[in-house]
Amino acid sequence: MNIDAAKAALAHLDLDENPHSVKAKSRDFFWYSPVLKDRLDGVSADFVVSPKSQDEVIEILRICHAHDVPVTVRGAGTGNYGQAMPLKGGCIIHMQSMNTVVEIGAGRVVTQPGVVIRELDAITREHSGQELRMMPSTAATATIGGFICGGSGGVGSVRWGVLRDYGNIIRIRVVTAEAEPRILDFTGEDLARVSHAYGTNGIVTEIELPLAPAYDWVHLFVTHPDFAAASRMAHDISLQDGLLIKLDTVCEAPIAAKYFQRFKGHVTEADNLVALMVAPQSMDGFLSLLAHYPEAKLIYRSDDNDWSRDPGPAYEYGWNHTTLRALKVEPVITYLQVRYAGEGFLDKIDEIRARFGDELIQHIEFLKENGVMTAAGLTLVRFTTEDRLNEIIAIHEEMGCMIFNPHRYTLEEGGRQIVDDRQLNFKREADPKGILNPGKMIAWEDPDWDFKTMYAYPDLKKA
Amino acid sequence: MNIDAAKAALAHLDLDENPHSVKAKSRDFFWYSPVLKDRLDGVSADFVVSPKSQDEVIEILRICHAHDVPVTVRGAGTGNYGQAMPLKGGCIIHMQSMNTVVEIGAGRVVTQPGVVIRELDAITREHSGQELRMMPSTAATATIGGFICGGSGGVGSVRWGVLRDYGNIIRIRVVTAEAEPRILDFTGEDLARVSHAYGTNGIVTEIELPLAPAYDWVHLFVTHPDFAAASRMAHDISLQDGLLIKLDTVCEAPIAAKYFQRFKGHVTEADNLVALMVAPQSMDGFLSLLAHYPEAKLIYRSDDNDWSRDPGPAYEYGWNHTTLRALKVEPVITYLQVRYAGEGFLDKIDEIRARFGDELIQHIEFLKENGVMTAAGLTLVRFTTEDRLNEIIAIHEEMGCMIFNPHRYTLEEGGRQIVDDRQLNFKREADPKGILNPGKMIAWEDPDWDFKTMYAYPDLKKA
Ligand SMILES: Cc1cc2nc3c(=O)[nH]c(=O)nc-3n(C[C@H](O)[C@H](O)[C@H](O)COP(=O)(O)OP(=O)(O)OC[C@H]3O[C@@H](n4cnc5c(N)ncnc54)[C@H](O)[C@@H]3O)c2cc1C
Ligand SMILES: Cc1cc2nc3c(=O)[nH]c(=O)nc-3n(C[C@H](O)[C@H](O)[C@H](O)COP(=O)(O)OP(=O)(O)OC[C@H]3O[C@@H](n4cnc5c(N)ncnc54)[C@H](O)[C@@H]3O)c2cc1C
Repeated sequence: MNIDAAKAALAHLDLDENPHSVKAKSRDFFWYSPVLKDRLDGVSADFVVSPKSQDEVIEILRICHAHDVPVTVRGAGTGNYGQAMPLKGGCIIHMQSMNTVVEIGAGRVVTQPGVVIRELDAITREHSGQELRMMPSTAATATIGGFICGGSGGVGSVRWGVLRDYGNIIRIRVVTAEAEPRILDFTGEDLARVSHAYGTNGIVTEIELPLAPAYDWVHLFVTHPDFAAASRMAHDISLQDGLLIKLDTVCEAPIAAKYFQRFKGHVTEADNLVALMVAPQSMDGFLSLLAHYPEAKLIYRSDDNDWSRDPGPAYEYGWNHTTLRALKVEPVITYLQVRYAGEGFLDKIDEIRARFGDELIQHIEFLKENGVMTAAGLTLVRFTTEDRLNEIIAIHEEMGCMIFNPHRYTLEEGGRQIVDDRQLNFKREADPKGILNPGKMIAWEDPDWDFKTMYAYPDLKKA
Repeated sequence: MNIDAAKAALAHLDLDENPHSVKAKSRDFFWYSPVLKDRLDGVSADFVVSPKSQDEVIEILRICHAHDVPVTVRGAGTGNYGQAMPLKGGCIIHMQSMNTVVEIGAGRVVTQPGVVIRELDAITREHSGQELRMMPSTAATATIGGFICGGSGGVGSVRWGVLRDYGNIIRIRVVTAEAEPRILDFTGEDLARVSHAYGTNGIVTEIELPLAPAYDWVHLFVTHPDFAAASRMAHDISLQDGLLIKLDTVCEAPIAAKYFQRFKGHVTEADNLVALMVAPQSMDGFLSLLAHYPEAKLIYRSDDNDWSRDPGPAYEYGWNHTTLRALKVEPVITYLQVRYAGEGFLDKIDEIRARFGDELIQHIEFLKENGVMTAAGLTLVRFTTEDRLNEIIAIHEEMGCMIFNPHRYTLEEGGRQIVDDRQLNFKREADPKGILNPGKMIAWEDPDWDFKTMYAYPDLKKA
C-alpha cells in the first residue's frame, strides 16, 4: 500500500487530506449500534477524493490499483452498518460531485449516483410529475448510489417491494478496479452481481431506475389505544388494492409521546401511532375505511390541520428514523431488523411483545414480498449487553422470525448469512487485488468462515 | 304506463321510435348465454331518447315518472347479462351524447358517463400521460358509465383489484326518479349504494375516477406446453411487485390455436397461452424472470415482432373477449365465472380440469382481492342443456369455488345471491314507483324470493 504515491498521482483532482474532515468522511451511522460503535469507532481513511466524472473515477481506480491502495466509496454516509467505512484505511471516493440527472423518460430515469434522493425526486417531479418508486427515509440527505449499493427498500416498499425485486432497478453501470478499469452495464438477472454489494466489486457511475407518478402525498398520523388492534388496522389498510399508499408504519406506545418532540400535546403515552402517506385521490376511500375503526383517531393530515409546528413528512417518523428519534432522546436504545411473514405474522408480533415486555418496543413497517403483504420490524431495544442482544436475536429466531442483524459490518452477517456467489464471482473478476471496501465480504476474506461468532476483520486499521 | 303521453312530452329531444333500431338498442350481449337468450330474446323498449345534458336527463325522468313509464339506461350495450335490456319495455335512455370529459387532474378524472372508455383513455393520456386504472376488455366500445353501473373489473385488476374496492371510484353523481328528480353525489362508503346497480336506483350523470400513469404497454404472448405449469408461471409473474403489469391471462390449449384467427402459424393445438401487458420499464425484469421457465416461449411482443398480421391488443384475447372469440368459431360454447382464492387455488383448477375433461376449457385471469393475488375463471363451457349447466355450477360450488352466474339477469343472481340492502334502501328513496330498470333487483320485486330456481320476472314484456 503506497498512500503517498497515490496521493501524489491524484493531486490534480478534488483531494481532501485534512485528518479531521477525512475522519468525518470515514464515518456513517454505525454508532446506532453499540456493537459496531465498539468495533469501528476509530476507523479512518487516509484521504478523500471527489471525482467529477466517470473518467476521473477510472483514473482514481487505476492509480489506487497500481499502488495497492484500498478504495471505499461514500455516498452521503447515512448507512447504519459501517458500510461506507474504510476498515483498512486508504482512499475514500466521495461521490458528491457526480450528481447529474442524465435523462428522464416515461417511467424511468438515468442518473449519476451522487445525487441526493430528494433532489432527484424534485427534478423528476418538475420534469414530468414522476418520482422514485421507493426511497429510504433518509431521502433528504442520502444519495441514490448509496441506496442502490447499501440500502434495501423503504418508503414505497408497501407497494413496490424492495430494491432487489425484478423491475425495481433497470440498469447499473460500474467501473472495475483492474489494472485497466472497464466500464460494464448490468441489467436483468445480472443486477444482483453489483447491487447491494457495498461497493466491494465495482464503483457505480450510472443508474437507471423505474419511476412512478408523483402525487401530493397526504401525510397522516392516526392513534389507537391498542397495539394489536392498531397493527391489524394498518395491515387492513395495506391490503386495500385500490388505496394508493406509500408508507404504513406502526409505532407502539409510548414511542410517539416520548420520542417525537413535535407530537407533544397531540398524543399521550398510551397512544400507538400509525403513520401513513396516502395519495390525494385515495383520501375519500381511506377515510371511509378508517371509519370502520371507531377507536382510531386521525390526529393529523398534512393537507388540513391546526398543529402549530409542522411535524414534517410522515416518513421521517418511519423506517430507521423511528430509531434515530428514539436514541436521540434515550441513548441506551438500539434496534433490530426482523422479518415477519407467513400465516398469522401479526400474532407472532403479539407473542414477541408478551415475551419481552419493556425491553423491546415494537415498530413495524408493512412491505410487499413476492406479492404478499409482510412486515419488517425495526424493533427498538433497550440495550444492556452484547450477550443479551445476541440472546434477544436468538429468541426471535427460535420463535420463527428471521433477523437481519444490524450490528454487523459484513455483507453476509447483515443479510442471510450466506455467501452470494454472484457478488463473489464478480469481485474475482472486477477487483483481483481485493482493494474495494476491504473487510466487508467475508467470502472474499475468509471463505471458510462458519458464522458462529461475529466476524472480526483482521486488517482493521484504527486511527 | 302511458307511453304515448311520455313520447309526446319528449318529442323535442333526440327521440328514436323506429321499431327496428329501438329493438337493436334494447339488446346487449345477453346471447352469450343460451339461458338468457331463451328468456330475453324478444325484449324491446318502446322508444329511445338520447339526452344531451343532465337537465335533459332530469326532464326525461320527470316525464317518465309522471306517466309511469319504465326507464332503462343504455351505455353501449356490451353487458353480458341483459343488464341494459328493458324487460318491461318503456323508455331507453341512451347515454351516447353525454360524452364530455369534464376535468382532468393529477391522479383523477371527472367525466360524463357516455364517453367510450378508449376515448376517455386517449383524452387523459393526451392531457397528462394518464389512463384509467382498470377497464373492461370491451374498452373500444363500452362506455365508462356502463362499466361503473354494470361491470366489475378487468384489465388492470391484476394490480388495482376491482371497482368496488375502496379508492377505485371517487364520486358518482346520480339523478333520482322521483316526481321532482334530485341530483345527488356519492362518495366513500355511500358509493356502494349506486355503483354496480344496473341503473335500478338512479341515472349516473357524472363520475370521478382515479387515474394511473399511462405507459406504452408492451403486449405479449407466451406459450407453454403444460397448462398447470403455465398457470403457475403466470401466477409467479403476477406476484412480482416490481414488475408493472396490467394483464395476466391464461388460456388453456387449444383456445389459441382454435379460436384466435391471427395466431394461425404461431401456435399449435398443444399450446397454452399466457397473454400479458407489461410496462416498458419492466420489460428487462420481466424477461429475466421469464428465462427461469425454459419451456415457456415468447411468441409475440408488440414492440418487436415479425407477425404479418397485427393481432391487436393482448386484452382483446382476455377477459370476456376469450369467450367472444370462442363462440364466434364454435357457437355451442358459453362460459362460467368462477372465483379461485385461498391456499392452493391453482391446485383446485387442476382438479376441476381433471374432473370435467373436454367439457370445460380453462381460461383464468389473475386479479387482486384484498391485497392477495387470486384468479377469476372465465371458463369456456361446451353447452348441452340448462340442467347440465346448473350441474356444472353445482359441482364447482361443491368443490369450493364460488360462481358468479352469468346466466341470470338479476343483480342478486349474478352476484353472491344476497340482497344488497344499501342498494335496495336507496331505491326506495330514489325510485318510489319502481320505474328504473324493472325486473333486475329481486329484492324490490319479490322480497321473499328464495333463490332455489332461476328468477322469472313476471312483467317480462316480449315483442
Ligand atoms: C435515520 C435513518 C433512516 C434510514 N432509513 C432507511 C430506509 O428506509 N431504507 C434503507 O434501505 N436504508 C435506510 N437507512 C440506511 C441508509 O440511509 C440508506 O441505505 C441510504 O440510501 C444510504 O445512502 P448514502 O448515500 O448515505 O450511502 P452511504 O452510506 O454513503 O453508502 C452506502 C453503501 O453503498 C456504497 N456506495 C455508495 N455509493 C456507491 C457507488 N457510487 N458505487 C459503489 N458503492 C457505493 C458505500 O460504499 C456503502 O457501502 C437509514 C439510515 C438512517 C440513519
Ligand atoms: C367481449 C366482452 C368482454 C367483456 N369484458 C369485461 C371485462 O373485462 N370486465 C367487465 O367488468 N365487464 C366486461 N364485459 C361486460 C361489459 O362490456 C362491460 O361491463 C362494459 O363496461 C359495459 O359498458 P356499456 O357501456 O356497454 O354498458 P351497458 O351494457 O350499456 O350497461 C351496463 C349496465 O349499466 C347500466 N348503465 C349504463 N349507463 C348508466 C348510467 N349512466 N346510469 C345508470 N346506469 C347505467 C345499464 O342500465 C346496464 O344495467 C365484457 C363484455 C363483452 C361482450
